[in-house]
Amino acid sequence: MKKRVGQYLMDCLSNVGVDKVFGVPGDFNLTFLDDIISRNDLEWVGNTNELNASYAADGYARLKGIAAMVTTFGVGELSAVNGIAGSYAERVPVIQITGAPTRAVEQAGKYVHHSLGEGHFDDYRNMYDSITTAQAYITPENAQSEIPRVINAALFEKRPVHIHLPIDVANTEIEVTASFELAEHQHMDVSKYMQMIVGKLQSAEQPVIITGHEINSFGLHEALEKFVTQTHIPVAQLSLGKGAFNEESPYYMGVYDGALADKAIRDYVDQSDAILNIGAKLTDSATAGYSYQFDIDDVVMINHHNFKMNETKDNDVSLVDLLAGLNKLNYVNHTDFPKYKRPSAHDYDLNDDPLTQETYFKMMQDFIKDEDVIIAEQGTSFFGAYDLALNQHNKFIGQPLWGSIGYTLPATLGTQLADPKRRNLLLIGDGSLQLTVQAISTMIREEIKPVIFVINNDGYTVERKIHGENEMYNDIQMWDYKLLPTVFGGKDEVCTHDVNTSEEFQKVLLQVETQPDRMHFIEVKMDVHDAPRKLNAIGQAFAKQNG
Amino acid sequence: MKKRVGQYLMDCLSNVGVDKVFGVPGDFNLTFLDDIISRNDLEWVGNTNELNASYAADGYARLKGIAAMVTTFGVGELSAVNGIAGSYAERVPVIQITGAPTRAVEQAGKYVHHSLGEGHFDDYRNMYDSITTAQAYITPENAQSEIPRVINAALFEKRPVHIHLPIDVANTEIEVTASFELAEHQHMDVSKYMQMIVGKLQSAEQPVIITGHEINSFGLHEALEKFVTQTHIPVAQLSLGKGAFNEESPYYMGVYDGALADKAIRDYVDQSDAILNIGAKLTDSATAGYSYQFDIDDVVMINHHNFKMNETKDNDVSLVDLLAGLNKLNYVNHTDFPKYKRPSAHDYDLNDDPLTQETYFKMMQDFIKDEDVIIAEQGTSFFGAYDLALNQHNKFIGQPLWGSIGYTLPATLGTQLADPKRRNLLLIGDGSLQLTVQAISTMIREEIKPVIFVINNDGYTVERKIHGENEMYNDIQMWDYKLLPTVFGGKDEVCTHDVNTSEEFQKVLLQVETQPDRMHFIEVKMDVHDAPRKLNAIGQAFAKQNG
Repeated sequence: MKKRVGQYLMDCLSNVGVDKVFGVPGDFNLTFLDDIISRNDLEWVGNTNELNASYAADGYARLKGIAAMVTTFGVGELSAVNGIAGSYAERVPVIQITGAPTRAVEQAGKYVHHSLGEGHFDDYRNMYDSITTAQAYITPENAQSEIPRVINAALFEKRPVHIHLPIDVANTEIEVTASFELAEHQHMDVSKYMQMIVGKLQSAEQPVIITGHEINSFGLHEALEKFVTQTHIPVAQLSLGKGAFNEESPYYMGVYDGALADKAIRDYVDQSDAILNIGAKLTDSATAGYSYQFDIDDVVMINHHNFKMNETKDNDVSLVDLLAGLNKLNYVNHTDFPKYKRPSAHDYDLNDDPLTQETYFKMMQDFIKDEDVIIAEQGTSFFGAYDLALNQHNKFIGQPLWGSIGYTLPATLGTQLADPKRRNLLLIGDGSLQLTVQAISTMIREEIKPVIFVINNDGYTVERKIHGENEMYNDIQMWDYKLLPTVFGGKDEVCTHDVNTSEEFQKVLLQVETQPDRMHFIEVKMDVHDAPRKLNAIGQAFAKQNG
Repeated sequence: MKKRVGQYLMDCLSNVGVDKVFGVPGDFNLTFLDDIISRNDLEWVGNTNELNASYAADGYARLKGIAAMVTTFGVGELSAVNGIAGSYAERVPVIQITGAPTRAVEQAGKYVHHSLGEGHFDDYRNMYDSITTAQAYITPENAQSEIPRVINAALFEKRPVHIHLPIDVANTEIEVTASFELAEHQHMDVSKYMQMIVGKLQSAEQPVIITGHEINSFGLHEALEKFVTQTHIPVAQLSLGKGAFNEESPYYMGVYDGALADKAIRDYVDQSDAILNIGAKLTDSATAGYSYQFDIDDVVMINHHNFKMNETKDNDVSLVDLLAGLNKLNYVNHTDFPKYKRPSAHDYDLNDDPLTQETYFKMMQDFIKDEDVIIAEQGTSFFGAYDLALNQHNKFIGQPLWGSIGYTLPATLGTQLADPKRRNLLLIGDGSLQLTVQAISTMIREEIKPVIFVINNDGYTVERKIHGENEMYNDIQMWDYKLLPTVFGGKDEVCTHDVNTSEEFQKVLLQVETQPDRMHFIEVKMDVHDAPRKLNAIGQAFAKQNG
């Protein structure tokens, strides 16, 4: 069957579940966009800029398992670099498609716009090498091998890939010989590692699992919970990957963040003598500056491509195989452990005092429902929200490894578009919102209904806690945030709210409950120096790390 | 004298004329920012995001000759990549300083936030290799050689450089042995090329100069005009680098843009038999898709690092030396040429019909004053504005080679801060404004007074003219643009205006004249399909190039 290469590419994306394509038009992708908008199974989501498109694609992929975006050559693809690098760091598969000048223009070395004006055309795609797991320069001849190769690589690695698509290639007809198929996973024998792990567990007095973001990336929640339920090993999870483990499980202990963790959890984990680190990374932000006290030699590292126990290392093994292997282990833990204490509801006063961060998060705790998607911006929002007790079906999204402020606003565009029926709660602050604010315009245009909480506390609080508490560089321009939906064309579509006190906040939360079919934009004023307890502590740890 | 490395770096920047530093705070640069804000000779300009910071630095450098910006590691420096690449393409020297994790953290390969989480730290700086002319990893030992080396490289090449500054290095005290000195330019003997050029000119019947952006980058306006005045060779300039030649000179013919040029100029240039291409690049956007008709073998290429005449090539020569050489030539042209016809004022009606693009630019022509800085966004604005007749002291800024939409709004923040006393006129459209809109907030915060004309014509007109005239991907969300200054905290500071007709536009222009101490924000509504004549033609040329 004859198809244009651009059509074939969209067929492949549709095959793996993509139903929205993010991006910004440009003259090297325009004719190819026709092959998107003419389809019934795909929708084009035009973003206000490419960084926002890349963040939106990341958010979408965290729910749907994969995402695609289209930029133009140079100016467009380079604006998306930060977002794609974040997807790489946190293992989110995004297909970045660059519409590029024709092969004839490239071969002639012409001085075209969007090039560096020196006749070479490989600079940008080379820049993508270290932030994508595979790259392809598509031609009519290689389209049917290269496109499946990179899509499969994205899915296998849960990382972004880069597709360089000359516009003449996109428009060239090819004879399509086979439809896209998922590559079969070549399972590896991990039994020798499992024997080592059993040995370790059997000689241990206090085993524990630390888990994190790779479980979310690879969708291994069921496999992990099955392993836990069989073995009764208690689980602590990192903030990096909150949601990896079911917080309603009887084997859940809570968040482990090194010195900041609740004493009972901290003591249990720090004194454990067999620590299975499953899909987690012990980063500085997840461990309050590496403040764990356990013996790192007691840790079995079980990560994608990385198994490590004592001197044994394997960099060629997949997390999927390792978890499958764990599920065949014959071991049951009998050691007691501190159970997770879910917070009891309503331990705060409703009054007309200024709302505090502490009360804000307590009220948020009571507000969230089982199916909510909670997106928390790296800042006061994330450092407060990662201590929320989740329900089994909540989805929690943060970006604590990459930590690019402004990420969550466009990411929420993506998560909400991935599943318009689930309620999305975005928790963000003023400083972050300013970076990517125009994503609100796209939300209104797409007619989605997230609930957006914006903490207005006049500046970069997370930075204040690290250094320069009162310095001008941590101040920002005060905006009239509540006008934003109106500016962006959503005066009638968006309910805007203003919160100063817990009483007001309670009223607004009730309104949100009663109007689920509206987008809500809530400005929450809080004191400039107020912050969640953990952010204060993390700030000190980061300052020390820089010393 | 003992100084911290950060202080020494700022001393060097101050020495070369930098008095504003752009950027966004982050924990790997915070303590270093103290060494900026504590100075009297430097001001910190906090931007809303790093892309905007890079555009602002580019605009600043186009007026001041050099600029500096500071980001944090990873998230920050990668968001600036597109802006820095544009500075590279169009030869604008911007010092990009990345505040990075300590050397100890890097050497230990720690999993820190803002890294890819794999223990390596060189990915981002390597990505800068192809878009900067020099790179440096600063240590206390090399600071006094590496910092001067890269600043001198930026000044010599008129291109950006990248400085990787670990935060512990920034805070380390060193014994400063000498203050920064500009590297002496090693002049080269170009006399053999000059003999070739004289020979070419003497045998020519119709010599011409085509000039462009490198004259602006290297500040060679006087040298060029002196050469022209001595030799009487007429000058056509490209849109890429408009302002390179004094449009009030009797030797100025007008803009040459290939098939789009006025017939008299086009005929003269296309039939020339000795074409001195001085600091110009014959790009697709500057020549309406390479639609020049002259014999390329008659062109003498005189560019920075590139001299080419017939088979003679030299890639090691500087434009400064070549122009100095030209100024010693003994040659006078006697051929007559078409003189530039400056438009006569007021050949339009003031009425209440919808304002057209044609009338808009005619009225703009009458409005501009000799000292104005005119910044024109790549789109209808640039393609209309590059035909404006400039006065000798106007400064014209566009970005037709790199062509990143959204560039000019933050760039105007930079140009206006470079010289707050000159009137800055920004001509931009709605689609472009949406990419970088938050720069208005920084303008208000910095209390500068540019005049901003926003064409509201509901979408990406430049794209419509290439492909998809009525397709949804070229539509954008309709904003209430006039509310933007209020949202961004400038309700009382900014005069906002609304224009639908030529009568209204005239009134607004008068108001702007009478209130020069205010920032003005003017929304100009025009028809969705209306465009400057030249944009229509360029769109067709670009579409053909992609075919």
